[in-house]
Amino acid sequence: MNEAKRLVVALGGNALEEKSLPPTAESQLDVVKRTVEYLADLSVKGYELAIAHGNGPQVGRIVLASEAAANVTPAMPFDVCGAMSQGYIGYHIQQALRFALQKRGKNTPVVSLVTQVVVDKNDPAFQKPTKPIGPFYSEEEAKKLQAEKGFSVKEDAGRGWRRVVASPMPKRIVELSAVKELFDTTIVITVGGGGIPVVEREDGILEGVAAVIDKDLAAERLAEDIDADILMILTEVEKVSLNFKKPDQKDLDHITVAEAERYIEEGHFAPGSMLPKVQAAIRFAKSHPGKQAIITSLYKAVDAVEGKAGTVITM
Amino acid sequence: MNEAKRLVVALGGNALEEKSLPPTAESQLDVVKRTVEYLADLSVKGYELAIAHGNGPQVGRIVLASEAAANVTPAMPFDVCGAMSQGYIGYHIQQALRFALQKRGKNTPVVSLVTQVVVDKNDPAFQKPTKPIGPFYSEEEAKKLQAEKGFSVKEDAGRGWRRVVASPMPKRIVELSAVKELFDTTIVITVGGGGIPVVEREDGILEGVAAVIDKDLAAERLAEDIDADILMILTEVEKVSLNFKKPDQKDLDHITVAEAERYIEEGHFAPGSMLPKVQAAIRFAKSHPGKQAIITSLYKAVDAVEGKAGTVITM
Repeated sequence: MNEAKRLVVALGGNALEEKSLPPTAESQLDVVKRTVEYLADLSVKGYELAIAHGNGPQVGRIVLASEAAANVTPAMPFDVCGAMSQGYIGYHIQQALRFALQKRGKNTPVVSLVTQVVVDKNDPAFQKPTKPIGPFYSEEEAKKLQAEKGFSVKEDAGRGWRRVVASPMPKRIVELSAVKELFDTTIVITVGGGGIPVVEREDGILEGVAAVIDKDLAAERLAEDIDADILMILTEVEKVSLNFKKPDQKDLDHITVAEAERYIEEGHFAPGSMLPKVQAAIRFAKSHPGKQAIITSLYKAVDAVEGKAGTVITM
Repeated sequence: MNEAKRLVVALGGNALEEKSLPPTAESQLDVVKRTVEYLADLSVKGYELAIAHGNGPQVGRIVLASEAAANVTPAMPFDVCGAMSQGYIGYHIQQALRFALQKRGKNTPVVSLVTQVVVDKNDPAFQKPTKPIGPFYSEEEAKKLQAEKGFSVKEDAGRGWRRVVASPMPKRIVELSAVKELFDTTIVITVGGGGIPVVEREDGILEGVAAVIDKDLAAERLAEDIDADILMILTEVEKVSLNFKKPDQKDLDHITVAEAERYIEEGHFAPGSMLPKVQAAIRFAKSHPGKQAIITSLYKAVDAVEGKAGTVITM
């Protein structure tokens, strides 16, 4: 019988790259090698891990390269760029984590699954796309893309025009059965970048769409579906705070879902930043009694599962 | 008890794209949708499938785009381009195959694994790189890349200079345990493009290298390792031939390893084309009594497992 606690870890952007370094694959691999040390420590402590990760900067650069080279070779649609980013980031994590485990005397296998996530084509998010992706355009270029390719475009804070895509809710992880089957023996890297977003047509065909699924919400979906005990969302700060960066900032150790919901109403958490993380945490804590969501930094991940760091959200 | 025959299918280039179509992701998906019909038929006949595939044109275009956009965003190393191509191609195959199965009333899951394949850093292939990758350069540019990045470069039949990489033998599939664990329930897409080539350092670290592993040899390695009954190599022709495209061309139905080896000695099979396929087939047929290798076209795949088409190679 396996009584290990099941842990889904959602890695944020800072786990994959450091802003002070050039955005090369080589420097990503260096950052990933540091990141996986913490994941390996969690594994050694007996947790069964599944790993979700963001892909914002990486898929952004894949889109950039693809568009910039469009005169040489056809540009790739956004869903394919997402699939490519899963291959790229998953490869680095699985290669580095395997070695970090090996150093600790563990030979737990690690593998990345190419993962599609179904979104509802009637999700209201499709009515108001918000996520900027790819390069900046002039107004003229942007309007041309809008007319010719049906892109949604938006002026981005005086810096130029960009394509924007929707951020719909994750409904279903298409490759879930494989994650479940592997989970007891293997560290699975999945729903990279929130998963490749697909919609299900009437006839059952899945079709890739240009959208960005929030990776913390995708990790939450995964954590519920594989009956994880803990959803751990890793970010840049050690704890969730009230009055963040104000003189009266108050860091939170343990909050209930009710408290978290009240803090959201009071506007404590920034949209697109801490807010979706707290929302994902609430959703998981609510999903089943005894479930625990933790928001903390990579560096505090091990302390946090032992109750010595981070912000814990429970029912 | 599961008594289904285990089949490893190696998809060639024509299963993923058609030369008459523009090399876009959209047209690849159309070709893949046609390809998976044959794979779904094999699955319906009760075969357990693992799928290997080539990535030559796709990774070529990823390298092209990456190099052409190097003034916008840093170019990706070749191993990462390979990982990206696994995400790209695997995504299309798993999406399309799942639907083709569903149409046939089967809900067998399909998933792609990001897969590394260990090669020997002392493989003699590293001494004479032969596989051209990426864009054409002028002699001056090529020599500069050689000096600055240590690339091997070669003049390519009067068309310009190109980078060349080695094509070492596949030694070990790093993510093999996951393939094995999934195989009984799930169609696994793995060793895409022959696998991401990695060498194992003394300290156990795996390190990506710029190399191309022959996808048929990688599929053979996989077929041995998962104890497949049949290795099926799909290509453009229905059968292996002697005196190919000559007036006295003779198509082969069933040959023994000894015959195949003699035909190789007689120079019947073109290097880089039919030769590596026959070599992979021989290797598999030799690996264990009763194993069968089949070389045929995609369109004859179902007939071939029933002994009605293709060239069968056995001990």
